[in-house]
Amino acid sequence: MEMPPLQYLEPKKKTGLVVVITGNGKGKTTSALGMCVRATGYGMKVSIIQFMKGDMYSGELDGIKRLAPNVELNLMGKGFCGIMGNPYPYKEHRANAQEAVKLAKERILSGKYDIVILDEINNACHLKLVDLPQVMEILDLKPPLMHLVLTGRNAAQEVIDRADTVSEVREIKHAYRQGIEPQKGIDY
Amino acid sequence: MEMPPLQYLEPKKKTGLVVVITGNGKGKTTSALGMCVRATGYGMKVSIIQFMKGDMYSGELDGIKRLAPNVELNLMGKGFCGIMGNPYPYKEHRANAQEAVKLAKERILSGKYDIVILDEINNACHLKLVDLPQVMEILDLKPPLMHLVLTGRNAAQEVIDRADTVSEVREIKHAYRQGIEPQKGIDY
Repeated sequence: MEMPPLQYLEPKKKTGLVVVITGNGKGKTTSALGMCVRATGYGMKVSIIQFMKGDMYSGELDGIKRLAPNVELNLMGKGFCGIMGNPYPYKEHRANAQEAVKLAKERILSGKYDIVILDEINNACHLKLVDLPQVMEILDLKPPLMHLVLTGRNAAQEVIDRADTVSEVREIKHAYRQGIEPQKGIDY
Repeated sequence: MEMPPLQYLEPKKKTGLVVVITGNGKGKTTSALGMCVRATGYGMKVSIIQFMKGDMYSGELDGIKRLAPNVELNLMGKGFCGIMGNPYPYKEHRANAQEAVKLAKERILSGKYDIVILDEINNACHLKLVDLPQVMEILDLKPPLMHLVLTGRNAAQEVIDRADTVSEVREIKHAYRQGIEPQKGIDY
Protein backbone atom coordinates (compact mmCIF):
# COMPACT_ATOMS: atom_id res chain seq x y z
CA MET A 1 0.00 0.00 0.00
CA GLU A 2 1.39 3.38 -0.95
CA MET A 3 2.33 5.43 2.09
CA PRO A 4 2.38 9.23 2.08
CA PRO A 5 5.59 11.07 2.93
CA LEU A 6 5.93 12.09 6.57
CA GLN A 7 5.05 15.64 7.54
CA TYR A 8 7.50 17.52 9.73
CA LEU A 9 5.99 19.88 12.27
CA GLU A 10 8.03 22.83 13.51
CA PRO A 11 6.57 25.03 16.26
CA LYS A 12 6.84 28.71 15.39
CA LYS A 13 7.33 29.55 19.01
CA LYS A 14 9.47 27.27 21.12
CA THR A 15 8.24 27.15 24.72
CA GLY A 16 9.60 25.24 27.69
CA LEU A 17 6.65 23.45 29.26
CA VAL A 18 5.89 22.36 32.78
CA VAL A 19 4.29 18.91 32.54
CA VAL A 20 2.76 17.12 35.53
CA ILE A 21 1.88 13.41 35.43
CA THR A 22 -0.04 12.40 38.53
CA GLY A 23 -2.76 9.97 39.65
CA ASN A 24 -2.91 6.52 41.22
CA GLY A 25 -2.65 4.46 38.02
CA LYS A 26 0.19 2.67 36.26
CA GLY A 27 2.02 4.71 33.64
CA LYS A 28 3.52 7.85 35.15
CA THR A 29 7.22 7.05 35.26
CA THR A 30 6.64 4.89 32.18
CA SER A 31 5.34 7.94 30.36
CA ALA A 32 8.39 9.96 31.40
CA LEU A 33 10.62 7.19 30.02
CA GLY A 34 8.67 7.38 26.76
CA MET A 35 9.37 11.11 26.53
CA CYS A 36 13.06 10.22 26.74
CA VAL A 37 12.69 8.01 23.64
CA ARG A 38 11.09 10.89 21.73
CA ALA A 39 13.59 13.46 22.94
CA THR A 40 16.48 11.20 21.96
CA GLY A 41 15.04 11.08 18.44
CA TYR A 42 15.56 14.86 18.23
CA GLY A 43 19.04 14.69 19.76
CA MET A 44 17.78 16.47 22.86
CA LYS A 45 19.45 16.07 26.23
CA VAL A 46 17.45 14.78 29.22
CA SER A 47 18.18 14.43 32.92
CA ILE A 48 15.97 12.12 35.00
CA ILE A 49 16.25 12.32 38.76
CA GLN A 50 14.32 9.67 40.66
CA PHE A 51 13.24 10.97 44.07
CA MET A 52 11.88 7.83 45.67
CA LYS A 53 12.83 4.76 43.76
CA GLY A 54 16.31 3.40 43.95
CA ASP A 55 16.36 0.27 46.04
CA MET A 56 14.88 -2.13 43.50
CA TYR A 57 16.19 -3.11 40.11
CA SER A 58 13.97 -2.13 37.19
CA GLY A 59 14.57 -2.78 33.51
CA GLU A 60 14.64 0.97 32.87
CA LEU A 61 18.07 1.15 34.53
CA ASP A 62 19.62 -0.83 31.70
CA GLY A 63 17.15 0.19 29.00
CA ILE A 64 17.89 3.87 29.51
CA LYS A 65 21.59 3.23 28.87
CA ARG A 66 20.64 2.62 25.25
CA LEU A 67 19.54 6.26 25.12
CA ALA A 68 22.89 7.52 26.47
CA PRO A 69 24.44 10.02 26.19
CA ASN A 70 21.16 11.84 25.47
CA VAL A 71 19.52 10.62 28.67
CA GLU A 72 21.13 10.56 32.13
CA LEU A 73 19.45 8.85 35.05
CA ASN A 74 20.18 9.44 38.73
CA LEU A 75 18.61 7.23 41.38
CA MET A 76 18.47 9.27 44.54
CA GLY A 77 15.89 7.44 46.64
CA LYS A 78 15.76 4.42 48.85
CA GLY A 79 12.51 2.97 47.57
CA PHE A 80 9.03 4.03 48.50
CA CYS A 81 8.82 5.61 51.91
CA GLY A 82 6.23 4.03 54.15
CA ILE A 83 5.37 1.03 52.02
CA MET A 84 5.48 -2.42 53.49
CA GLY A 85 8.91 -3.98 53.56
CA ASN A 86 10.84 -0.74 53.08
CA PRO A 87 13.33 -0.78 55.96
CA TYR A 88 14.60 2.82 55.92
CA PRO A 89 13.46 5.42 58.47
CA TYR A 90 11.75 8.65 57.38
CA LYS A 91 14.91 10.65 58.21
CA GLU A 92 16.92 8.74 55.61
CA HIS A 93 14.23 9.06 52.96
CA ARG A 94 14.09 12.78 53.61
CA ALA A 95 17.89 13.13 53.45
CA ASN A 96 17.94 11.32 50.09
CA ALA A 97 15.10 13.42 48.70
CA GLN A 98 16.91 16.56 49.82
CA GLU A 99 20.00 15.41 47.90
CA ALA A 100 17.71 14.96 44.91
CA VAL A 101 16.46 18.56 45.24
CA LYS A 102 20.05 19.78 45.25
CA LEU A 103 20.90 17.78 42.14
CA ALA A 104 17.68 18.92 40.41
CA LYS A 105 18.64 22.57 40.93
CA GLU A 106 22.16 21.95 39.61
CA ARG A 107 20.81 20.19 36.52
CA ILE A 108 18.23 22.89 35.82
CA LEU A 109 20.71 25.74 36.26
CA SER A 110 23.45 24.03 34.23
CA GLY A 111 21.76 24.97 30.97
CA LYS A 112 22.84 21.59 29.54
CA TYR A 113 19.44 19.89 29.44
CA ASP A 114 16.43 20.34 27.17
CA ILE A 115 14.23 18.31 29.53
CA VAL A 116 14.59 17.66 33.26
CA ILE A 117 12.35 14.92 34.68
CA LEU A 118 11.80 14.84 38.45
CA ASP A 119 10.38 11.37 38.91
CA GLU A 120 8.15 10.85 41.98
CA ILE A 121 8.71 14.40 43.22
CA ASN A 122 4.95 14.90 43.65
CA ASN A 123 4.68 11.91 45.93
CA ALA A 124 7.91 12.90 47.74
CA CYS A 125 6.34 16.30 48.41
CA HIS A 126 3.07 14.74 49.59
CA LEU A 127 5.05 12.57 52.04
CA LYS A 128 7.01 15.63 53.27
CA LEU A 129 10.36 14.35 52.06
CA VAL A 130 10.51 17.58 50.06
CA ASP A 131 8.71 20.79 51.06
CA LEU A 132 6.24 22.45 48.73
CA PRO A 133 8.21 25.76 48.75
CA GLN A 134 11.20 23.76 47.46
CA VAL A 135 9.14 22.47 44.54
CA MET A 136 7.87 25.98 43.82
CA GLU A 137 11.47 27.26 43.91
CA ILE A 138 12.44 24.60 41.36
CA LEU A 139 9.57 25.80 39.13
CA ASP A 140 10.85 29.37 39.49
CA LEU A 141 14.36 28.31 38.44
CA LYS A 142 13.18 26.68 35.19
CA PRO A 143 14.75 28.41 32.17
CA PRO A 144 12.06 29.52 29.67
CA LEU A 145 13.01 27.01 26.96
CA MET A 146 13.66 24.02 29.19
CA HIS A 147 10.88 21.48 29.73
CA LEU A 148 10.30 20.35 33.30
CA VAL A 149 8.37 17.13 33.98
CA LEU A 150 7.12 16.28 37.49
CA THR A 151 5.72 12.81 38.08
CA GLY A 152 4.14 11.04 41.03
CA ARG A 153 0.75 10.66 42.63
CA ASN A 154 -0.81 13.35 44.84
CA ALA A 155 0.56 16.38 42.97
CA ALA A 156 -0.06 19.55 45.00
CA GLN A 157 -2.73 21.90 43.65
CA GLU A 158 -0.15 24.74 43.56
CA VAL A 159 2.00 22.66 41.22
CA ILE A 160 -0.97 21.79 39.00
CA ASP A 161 -1.88 25.48 38.85
CA ARG A 162 1.61 26.35 37.62
CA ALA A 163 1.79 23.55 35.02
CA ASP A 164 1.01 23.86 31.31
CA THR A 165 -0.02 20.23 30.77
CA VAL A 166 -1.33 17.92 33.47
CA SER A 167 -2.37 14.30 33.01
CA GLU A 168 -3.94 12.19 35.72
CA VAL A 169 -3.35 8.46 35.30
CA ARG A 170 -6.26 6.70 36.99
CA GLU A 171 -6.26 3.07 37.94
CA ILE A 172 -9.32 1.40 36.44
CA LYS A 173 -7.94 -2.06 37.10
CA HIS A 174 -4.62 -3.55 38.17
CA ALA A 175 -3.44 -7.13 37.78
CA TYR A 176 -2.07 -7.29 41.34
CA ARG A 177 -5.57 -6.83 42.72
CA GLN A 178 -6.42 -10.15 41.05
CA GLY A 179 -3.41 -11.69 42.79
CA ILE A 180 -1.13 -11.55 39.74
CA GLU A 181 2.47 -10.75 40.69
CA PRO A 182 4.26 -7.76 39.14
CA GLN A 183 5.71 -8.78 35.77
CA LYS A 184 9.10 -7.85 34.28
CA GLY A 185 9.00 -5.36 31.44
CA ILE A 186 5.46 -4.30 32.30
CA ASP A 187 5.39 -3.52 36.01
CA TYR A 188 9.10 -2.92 36.63
CA MET B 1 25.60 9.08 51.04
CA GLU B 2 25.75 5.32 51.27
CA MET B 3 23.31 3.64 48.92
CA PRO B 4 21.90 0.17 49.57
CA PRO B 5 22.42 -2.59 47.01
CA LEU B 6 19.59 -2.99 44.49
CA GLN B 7 17.01 -5.69 45.12
CA TYR B 8 16.12 -7.97 42.23
CA LEU B 9 12.51 -9.05 42.03
CA GLU B 10 11.64 -12.29 40.25
CA PRO B 11 7.98 -13.22 39.86
CA LYS B 12 7.33 -16.80 40.89
CA LYS B 13 4.68 -17.12 38.25
CA LYS B 14 5.28 -15.52 34.87
CA THR B 15 2.02 -14.30 33.34
CA GLY B 16 1.39 -12.56 30.03
CA LEU B 17 -0.74 -9.53 30.81
CA VAL B 18 -3.30 -7.62 28.80
CA VAL B 19 -2.71 -3.94 29.50
CA VAL B 20 -5.06 -1.19 28.28
CA ILE B 21 -4.06 2.48 28.32
CA THR B 22 -7.00 4.68 27.46
CA GLY B 23 -8.42 8.13 28.25
CA ASN B 24 -8.32 11.59 26.70
CA GLY B 25 -5.05 12.81 28.26
CA LYS B 26 -1.47 13.02 27.09
CA GLY B 27 0.69 9.99 27.88
CA LYS B 28 -0.77 6.83 26.37
CA THR B 29 1.60 6.15 23.46
CA THR B 30 4.31 7.77 25.56
CA SER B 31 3.71 5.20 28.26
CA ALA B 32 3.92 2.37 25.72
CA LEU B 33 7.28 3.78 24.55
CA GLY B 34 8.42 3.79 28.17
CA MET B 35 7.54 0.10 28.48
CA CYS B 36 9.88 -0.49 25.53
CA VAL B 37 12.74 1.10 27.48
CA ARG B 38 12.09 -1.21 30.42
CA ALA B 39 11.66 -4.31 28.26
CA THR B 40 14.91 -3.55 26.44
CA GLY B 41 16.67 -3.51 29.82
CA TYR B 42 15.65 -7.16 30.25
CA GLY B 43 16.63 -8.09 26.70
CA MET B 44 12.97 -8.67 25.83
CA LYS B 45 11.66 -8.34 22.29
CA VAL B 46 8.85 -5.87 21.51
CA SER B 47 6.73 -5.18 18.43
CA ILE B 48 4.86 -1.87 18.23
CA ILE B 49 2.22 -1.52 15.54
CA GLN B 50 0.77 1.96 15.20
CA PHE B 51 -2.82 1.81 13.92
CA MET B 52 -3.53 5.47 13.27
CA LYS B 53 -0.40 7.56 13.33
CA GLY B 54 1.96 7.46 10.45
CA ASP B 55 1.70 10.69 8.47
CA MET B 56 3.62 12.97 10.81
CA TYR B 57 7.21 12.74 11.96
CA SER B 58 7.65 12.20 15.67
CA GLY B 59 10.89 11.90 17.61
CA GLU B 60 9.93 8.37 18.64
CA LEU B 61 10.64 7.16 15.09
CA ASP B 62 14.33 7.86 15.51
CA GLY B 63 14.45 7.41 19.28
CA ILE B 64 13.10 3.88 19.05
CA LYS B 65 15.94 2.92 16.71
CA ARG B 66 18.23 3.18 19.70
CA LEU B 67 16.30 0.30 21.24
CA ALA B 68 16.76 -1.91 18.14
CA PRO B 69 16.88 -4.83 17.65
CA ASN B 70 14.81 -5.32 20.82
CA VAL B 71 12.05 -3.02 19.64
CA GLU B 72 10.51 -2.96 16.17
CA LEU B 73 8.08 -0.25 15.10
CA ASN B 74 5.62 -0.42 12.21
CA LEU B 75 3.65 2.65 11.19
CA MET B 76 0.51 1.43 9.53
CA GLY B 77 -1.77 4.46 9.69
CA LYS B 78 -2.28 7.64 7.75
CA GLY B 79 -2.63 9.98 10.71
CA PHE B 80 -5.74 10.53 12.78
CA CYS B 81 -8.92 9.76 10.92
CA GLY B 82 -11.42 12.59 10.99
CA ILE B 83 -9.19 15.28 12.53
CA MET B 84 -8.84 18.62 10.83
CA GLY B 85 -6.31 18.69 8.04
CA ASN B 86 -6.15 14.93 7.56
CA PRO B 87 -6.82 14.50 3.82
CA TYR B 88 -7.43 10.76 3.58
CA PRO B 89 -10.93 9.32 3.17
CA TYR B 90 -12.40 6.87 5.69
CA LYS B 91 -11.94 4.00 3.23
CA GLU B 92 -8.17 4.47 3.16
CA HIS B 93 -7.92 4.75 6.93
CA ARG B 94 -9.93 1.55 7.26
CA ALA B 95 -7.77 -0.27 4.68
CA ASN B 96 -4.62 0.74 6.57
CA ALA B 97 -6.06 -0.28 9.93
CA GLN B 98 -7.04 -3.64 8.43
CA GLU B 99 -3.45 -4.15 7.28
CA ALA B 100 -2.40 -3.36 10.85
CA VAL B 101 -4.76 -6.07 12.18
CA LYS B 102 -3.19 -8.57 9.79
CA LEU B 103 0.33 -7.64 10.91
CA ALA B 104 -0.71 -7.74 14.58
CA LYS B 105 -1.95 -11.32 14.20
CA GLU B 106 1.26 -12.34 12.43
CA ARG B 107 3.40 -10.79 15.16
CA ILE B 108 1.38 -12.35 17.97
CA LEU B 109 1.39 -15.81 16.40
CA SER B 110 5.09 -15.68 15.46
CA GLY B 111 6.11 -16.44 19.04
CA LYS B 112 9.05 -14.08 18.60
CA TYR B 113 7.86 -11.25 20.83
CA ASP B 114 7.59 -10.88 24.60
CA ILE B 115 5.40 -7.79 24.25
CA VAL B 116 3.17 -6.67 21.37
CA ILE B 117 1.91 -3.07 21.55
CA LEU B 118 -1.09 -2.13 19.41
CA ASP B 119 -0.89 1.65 19.51
CA GLU B 120 -4.18 3.52 18.98
CA ILE B 121 -6.13 0.32 18.37
CA ASN B 122 -8.79 1.40 20.89
CA ASN B 123 -9.44 4.61 19.03
CA ALA B 124 -9.28 2.81 15.66
CA CYS B 125 -11.97 0.44 16.95
CA HIS B 126 -14.09 3.33 18.25
CA LEU B 127 -13.89 4.96 14.79
CA LYS B 128 -14.86 1.65 13.10
CA LEU B 129 -11.55 1.30 11.27
CA VAL B 130 -11.27 -2.03 13.07
CA ASP B 131 -14.27 -4.06 14.27
CA LEU B 132 -14.65 -5.02 17.91
CA PRO B 133 -14.81 -8.78 17.05
CA GLN B 134 -11.39 -8.34 15.39
CA VAL B 135 -9.96 -6.90 18.61
CA MET B 136 -11.53 -9.72 20.64
CA GLU B 137 -10.03 -12.25 18.21
CA ILE B 138 -6.61 -10.67 18.74
CA LEU B 139 -7.11 -11.04 22.50
CA ASP B 140 -8.01 -14.72 21.98
CA LEU B 141 -4.83 -15.28 19.97
CA LYS B 142 -2.53 -13.95 22.71
CA PRO B 143 -0.10 -16.66 23.89
CA PRO B 144 -0.29 -17.07 27.70
CA LEU B 145 3.18 -15.64 28.39
CA MET B 146 3.11 -12.77 25.89
CA HIS B 147 2.10 -9.31 27.10
CA LEU B 148 -0.36 -7.42 24.91
CA VAL B 149 -0.72 -3.65 25.28
CA LEU B 150 -3.63 -1.78 23.70
CA THR B 151 -3.52 2.00 23.69
CA GLY B 152 -5.88 4.73 22.53
CA ARG B 153 -8.82 6.68 23.84
CA ASN B 154 -12.34 5.24 23.98
CA ALA B 155 -11.40 1.64 24.77
CA ALA B 156 -14.45 -0.62 24.43
CA GLN B 157 -15.92 -1.96 27.67
CA GLU B 158 -15.49 -5.53 26.37
CA VAL B 159 -11.75 -4.90 26.01
CA ILE B 160 -11.52 -3.37 29.49
CA ASP B 161 -13.36 -6.38 30.90
CA ARG B 162 -10.80 -8.73 29.36
CA ALA B 163 -7.74 -6.74 30.46
CA ASP B 164 -5.63 -7.38 33.56
CA THR B 165 -4.42 -3.80 34.02
CA VAL B 166 -6.23 -0.70 32.76
CA SER B 167 -5.09 2.89 33.18
CA GLU B 168 -7.14 5.89 32.12
CA VAL B 169 -5.05 8.96 31.31
CA ARG B 170 -7.27 11.98 31.97
CA GLU B 171 -6.54 15.43 30.69
CA ILE B 172 -6.58 17.84 33.61
CA LYS B 173 -4.93 20.57 31.56
CA HIS B 174 -3.22 20.81 28.17
CA ALA B 175 -0.87 23.54 26.96
CA TYR B 176 -2.57 23.78 23.57
CA ARG B 177 -5.76 24.97 25.24
CA GLN B 178 -3.77 28.00 26.38
CA GLY B 179 -2.69 28.54 22.78
CA ILE B 180 0.76 26.99 23.20
CA GLU B 181 1.83 25.05 20.11
CA PRO B 182 2.83 21.39 20.38
CA GLN B 183 6.49 21.15 21.40
CA LYS B 184 9.14 18.74 20.13
CA GLY B 185 10.19 16.02 22.55
CA ILE B 186 7.11 16.58 24.70
CA ASP B 187 4.09 16.56 22.41
CA TYR B 188 5.52 14.69 19.42
